[in-house]
Amino acid sequence: MHRTRRIAIPVILILVVLLRPDGPARGVEGMHPVNDLDRIDFAAAGLGITAEDVFAPRSVSLVDGICKVNGCTGSFVSDEGLILTNHHCAFRAVQEASEPGRDHLMDGFVARARGDEAPAQGYTVRITEGYRDVSADVLAAVDEDLDPLARARAIEQRIKEIEVATERAVPGVRAEVAEMFRGRTYVLFSYTYLKDVRLVYAPPRDVGNFGGERDNWAWPRHTGDFALLRAYVGPDGEPADHHADNVPYRPRTHLRISDAGVEAGDPVFLLGYPGTTVRHRSAAFLRHEATVRLPWIVDWYGWQIELLETASSRRPRDRMRLASRLKSLHNTHKNHRGKLQGIARLDLLARREAADRRLAAWIADDPSRERRFGRVLPGLTALHRTLSAVRPAELWLHHLRHDPAYLDLAFTVHEAAVQRQKPDLQRERDYMDRNFDQTLEQLAVRTRTVVDEVERALLLELLRRGGDLPAARVPDGLHRFVGEAGRAGAERLVDDALVRTGLADADWCRRVARMSPEEQAALDDPLLALAARLYPAWERQRDDVRRRRGELDPLLAALVEARQQALGRDFVPDANGTLRLSWGRLEGYDPRDAVHYRPLTTVRGLIEKDEGRLPYRLPARLRERAIPDALDVPVCLLYSTDTVGGSSGSPVFDRSGRLVALNFDRPWEATINDYAWDHAWSRSIGVDLRFAAWVIGEVDGAMHLLAEMGVASPEGR
Amino acid sequence: MHRTRRIAIPVILILVVLLRPDGPARGVEGMHPVNDLDRIDFAAAGLGITAEDVFAPRSVSLVDGICKVNGCTGSFVSDEGLILTNHHCAFRAVQEASEPGRDHLMDGFVARARGDEAPAQGYTVRITEGYRDVSADVLAAVDEDLDPLARARAIEQRIKEIEVATERAVPGVRAEVAEMFRGRTYVLFSYTYLKDVRLVYAPPRDVGNFGGERDNWAWPRHTGDFALLRAYVGPDGEPADHHADNVPYRPRTHLRISDAGVEAGDPVFLLGYPGTTVRHRSAAFLRHEATVRLPWIVDWYGWQIELLETASSRRPRDRMRLASRLKSLHNTHKNHRGKLQGIARLDLLARREAADRRLAAWIADDPSRERRFGRVLPGLTALHRTLSAVRPAELWLHHLRHDPAYLDLAFTVHEAAVQRQKPDLQRERDYMDRNFDQTLEQLAVRTRTVVDEVERALLLELLRRGGDLPAARVPDGLHRFVGEAGRAGAERLVDDALVRTGLADADWCRRVARMSPEEQAALDDPLLALAARLYPAWERQRDDVRRRRGELDPLLAALVEARQQALGRDFVPDANGTLRLSWGRLEGYDPRDAVHYRPLTTVRGLIEKDEGRLPYRLPARLRERAIPDALDVPVCLLYSTDTVGGSSGSPVFDRSGRLVALNFDRPWEATINDYAWDHAWSRSIGVDLRFAAWVIGEVDGAMHLLAEMGVASPEGR
Repeated sequence: MHRTRRIAIPVILILVVLLRPDGPARGVEGMHPVNDLDRIDFAAAGLGITAEDVFAPRSVSLVDGICKVNGCTGSFVSDEGLILTNHHCAFRAVQEASEPGRDHLMDGFVARARGDEAPAQGYTVRITEGYRDVSADVLAAVDEDLDPLARARAIEQRIKEIEVATERAVPGVRAEVAEMFRGRTYVLFSYTYLKDVRLVYAPPRDVGNFGGERDNWAWPRHTGDFALLRAYVGPDGEPADHHADNVPYRPRTHLRISDAGVEAGDPVFLLGYPGTTVRHRSAAFLRHEATVRLPWIVDWYGWQIELLETASSRRPRDRMRLASRLKSLHNTHKNHRGKLQGIARLDLLARREAADRRLAAWIADDPSRERRFGRVLPGLTALHRTLSAVRPAELWLHHLRHDPAYLDLAFTVHEAAVQRQKPDLQRERDYMDRNFDQTLEQLAVRTRTVVDEVERALLLELLRRGGDLPAARVPDGLHRFVGEAGRAGAERLVDDALVRTGLADADWCRRVARMSPEEQAALDDPLLALAARLYPAWERQRDDVRRRRGELDPLLAALVEARQQALGRDFVPDANGTLRLSWGRLEGYDPRDAVHYRPLTTVRGLIEKDEGRLPYRLPARLRERAIPDALDVPVCLLYSTDTVGGSSGSPVFDRSGRLVALNFDRPWEATINDYAWDHAWSRSIGVDLRFAAWVIGEVDGAMHLLAEMGVASPEGR
Repeated sequence: MHRTRRIAIPVILILVVLLRPDGPARGVEGMHPVNDLDRIDFAAAGLGITAEDVFAPRSVSLVDGICKVNGCTGSFVSDEGLILTNHHCAFRAVQEASEPGRDHLMDGFVARARGDEAPAQGYTVRITEGYRDVSADVLAAVDEDLDPLARARAIEQRIKEIEVATERAVPGVRAEVAEMFRGRTYVLFSYTYLKDVRLVYAPPRDVGNFGGERDNWAWPRHTGDFALLRAYVGPDGEPADHHADNVPYRPRTHLRISDAGVEAGDPVFLLGYPGTTVRHRSAAFLRHEATVRLPWIVDWYGWQIELLETASSRRPRDRMRLASRLKSLHNTHKNHRGKLQGIARLDLLARREAADRRLAAWIADDPSRERRFGRVLPGLTALHRTLSAVRPAELWLHHLRHDPAYLDLAFTVHEAAVQRQKPDLQRERDYMDRNFDQTLEQLAVRTRTVVDEVERALLLELLRRGGDLPAARVPDGLHRFVGEAGRAGAERLVDDALVRTGLADADWCRRVARMSPEEQAALDDPLLALAARLYPAWERQRDDVRRRRGELDPLLAALVEARQQALGRDFVPDANGTLRLSWGRLEGYDPRDAVHYRPLTTVRGLIEKDEGRLPYRLPARLRERAIPDALDVPVCLLYSTDTVGGSSGSPVFDRSGRLVALNFDRPWEATINDYAWDHAWSRSIGVDLRFAAWVIGEVDGAMHLLAEMGVASPEGR
């Protein structure tokens, strides 16, 4: 396999935080790109490793022991492709490994031998092969004369060209361009995807999801959120579809699990693929978030949760169908409420406004700065003012398109027909040849979540809410169905559509998605017709978003540049799904007056929480093994490293680079991390591998797996 | 006024706890009778006071600065009768001081001058004048031959005789005999009651009851549970009814408020009148509590709460009428659930069983012990087994008699007629001449809580539950109304009774209560008739309880004696409403895994809790004064002294005997205190007087009150 690593991203580091008077042995802001660790003082951070131990472009290092498993991070923990990741990441695989009479989700799953490992359909393991900076190449596509929409389109187009060209040049490799600083720096990553992934071990759901929704975004935590998968390749060592002749994948290296674990105060570091942060924005952006977007989502998701909870409580079948939608709604709802509270608690808006004022003064102080940066802050303010005015309508159309499952299906099927008329490189990403199979697969998954009464209520409520929009923002042909006035008409429209549509059938969806627009129209499906009627408004909105991006990118690029000059230092770039390192230590925090949280929970606390009913219900075999000998085994850890959404499964290491935990959540107060890191509140939560080893070994007797991972059996400790 | 203090109670002290290896500067078990402090090592407890500073029978000491205000403890804080107590103790006075257009409960109350002080009707201030041991006198009334019922009756009768004789001998004095150890020691207390009590100051309810039900039995706490009253006497210095010519009462001494306050770790002690503990019982008693009585109450009160909450939410008028019933139900419900959890958490039953087994072995070890104590533990076990069998029926009849307001009224009115036929000393206590006026007053208070639909539902539900009792336990004439089968009949009975009864009228109740049984019967009131029909069963049950008491008392007396001999030390007697001292220090605790509570809350936390709506809603004027200058003012304190119900208003002192706080609650985990004290969980909660002074002075501008109490104005600190 080819390896094309070159250090090329501008050095964008932060040292100031390391020199704070309260010393380095506590958490600091920053998810550092792993190719840019040279200037970190690991010793001052209490870590006994070097940048080369983490990432060595020309040899083997820790990052070679890491992979991506669907949306999560996985850690190779043996030389035979054994992967440690979160239980919630393996959830679907465990669900699908179940058979009649054998509920592995409930009971857990233990492969006693290789042959027992269960295919994890739809799972892929992504191995990073290399990367290079392509900023110059991407930015060469734009010139000063382009209007914002054309500029955004040109960059998208160039990125697609680079990706397709790379994939053509090296068959089997998948190429993806990541934007590091908006409008400034772009990096091309090359990946290999392993397609034969198997389930090896999962604890019972009552352990892996102990605490359920109630403990989500919460500390103290007692969730055993870990599982084991294994990646396989063909006998030739190349990626292959599932086959009995396949052999375990041999990773370049695998991570070593610590025998001793960590204690309160110990330094730790974490490697993972954090999703998105927006820390380098202006106060105008934050005001928009705090006053428009977050409250809109909290309100609408709150409404949906009530609807779906009621429907779920009525019929067990619907509860299963709605479970993952509901989980995702709860997750975002709680997260966004936490963000709003965090913005208020940290008085973040006032702080950003003060920072903007200081920057504006610095710019105004010098005519050359004024020329270069003078229009940046006013431009951003104007842009966000416009955005705040149109955003409720855009959010409405976005959620009308996505939230009722039927309309989501109808839109995708209709859009497929429209887009696939175009040349491949000009299509929206989901409909390009390289992505279309996956899009069809997602269609099928979506059909399995349809509950007619829920879809009907969602459609009717969204149409009702459409009555609050400015008339000009209501898509053509929809005026007579929106608001209270449109209620009767909307009910007739929706009831007729639900009776006649074919979209509930996954095969029908896949077949129709490959038809031409004319063939689709001939089907006379009422929901496809509705999607077609809404589609022009949707396309217009997508171009509006693109145009705004075209205006925003140069302003944000200039904002970062101005800040760097004004403050005389570089920043860590916002998280963008690429591999990052962050460090901190095991430390608690004070969630409210007179309350202190310690950074380590124990089996004793797990037993105390057990109520014998969900969400706190423990398997009898765990209780029996726990009392009295295992009460002091640590269960979860809390640490001040910097993480955001997308850090699921990230390995947490001790000072020597030994694996001690798997990251899986943050406390409610740390949902603010998207906007700002704050030592008082920013904490992340991981499951301690001493607990994982105890459950795998002592509770489930899978000593062969502990041996494969090189973990001493619990008794041996 | 006479003073007849003699140290006479057997010395019943505990020193072992002071010698524990972890040192004395932390909380210890024991609510010590104040006449029995000589053997406490105050210095080792970190206290700079002596037993004589607290209680000096022949001179003036701290206890002379304490009084009882209705059910609460009050502290004299000036030489003009100013009394500091809890807001919840002054609640009714504040409510009744309100006029149309002037809601003092909502806005708070500040008397700017003496003439503004508002009469607190129904309030009395009790001053302790003296006490003497009367154990020999009481126990002389019983001899070995009496059966248990006769024995219990004889003791009751002798106690009444002693009380009445004492009151006759010293006019104006009220006498009360307290039982210190069940069946062993009795003390006669003499009291003066001051009857002119006035409201001086109360914070707004949103401060005084901040957190409401949600924070009841909870830490961290931010409740400003303090108020000021003043006691008045006639111009001759003797107790007098309210009159314009009255003058402020001059207490023997008053308590001094600390300028500095206390900090985490500081020792504190507390004086008060803790109600009832049951720490010296056998495992059989605790098993009965844990398996029969507590679960029964939790279930029934939970049902009542749901009923009353629903009724309250329907009509504002009913919400007012039901408020205090609901508050009391919630309070007991949460308390009893806490007790059950505490018994489980401390594994208390197993610990008591082990202690009983050790005691039984010690007894069996020696024939003379066997003769003296051999039947104690088996006797208690047999008694509690019998009790557990009959208790559900007894609880049912007890709550049928008391919980539906109409039946409570009917029973009292009917019983008054029956009892007042008898000679005074042979009546039940409530109907003796010395108590009857108060009983009539309580009748009137009860009529103000009647809500027809609630009383109807309570009666019907209790009758329905009556169907689950053994038929023999259902009172005669009630069989056709109980259970599901009796439903229709019960509805007719109750509906007719509610239409025709006169009991909703307070004056009618007072008038009819003074009638003879024959005159009452002639009224043909359906609820009085129902009470009369149930009365024989009620009398039988009362004698059953008495008989059990007659059996239990000698066993409990022998149990304490055996324990003292076996362990080689004395015990602190169970709390019984008499004055006690307990000490500990400001210290937090660990409520659950990974969580630590600190022992001091601040105005910062108060402001953070404010949601602008109940139960967390702060007056604007407090917020305005708080930010940013007063955020560090302490609000509530947590300390490891030993308290139980009845400790409301107890003064909390620093090491020098300066007042620092008023006790008002315990955390949920400390509801276990009734059964056992445990250093890990037993904590009490007080409002810090630095907060009280800040609210009185800074927020409400009542500097004259701070001056009267000798408190430096907040700015001056």
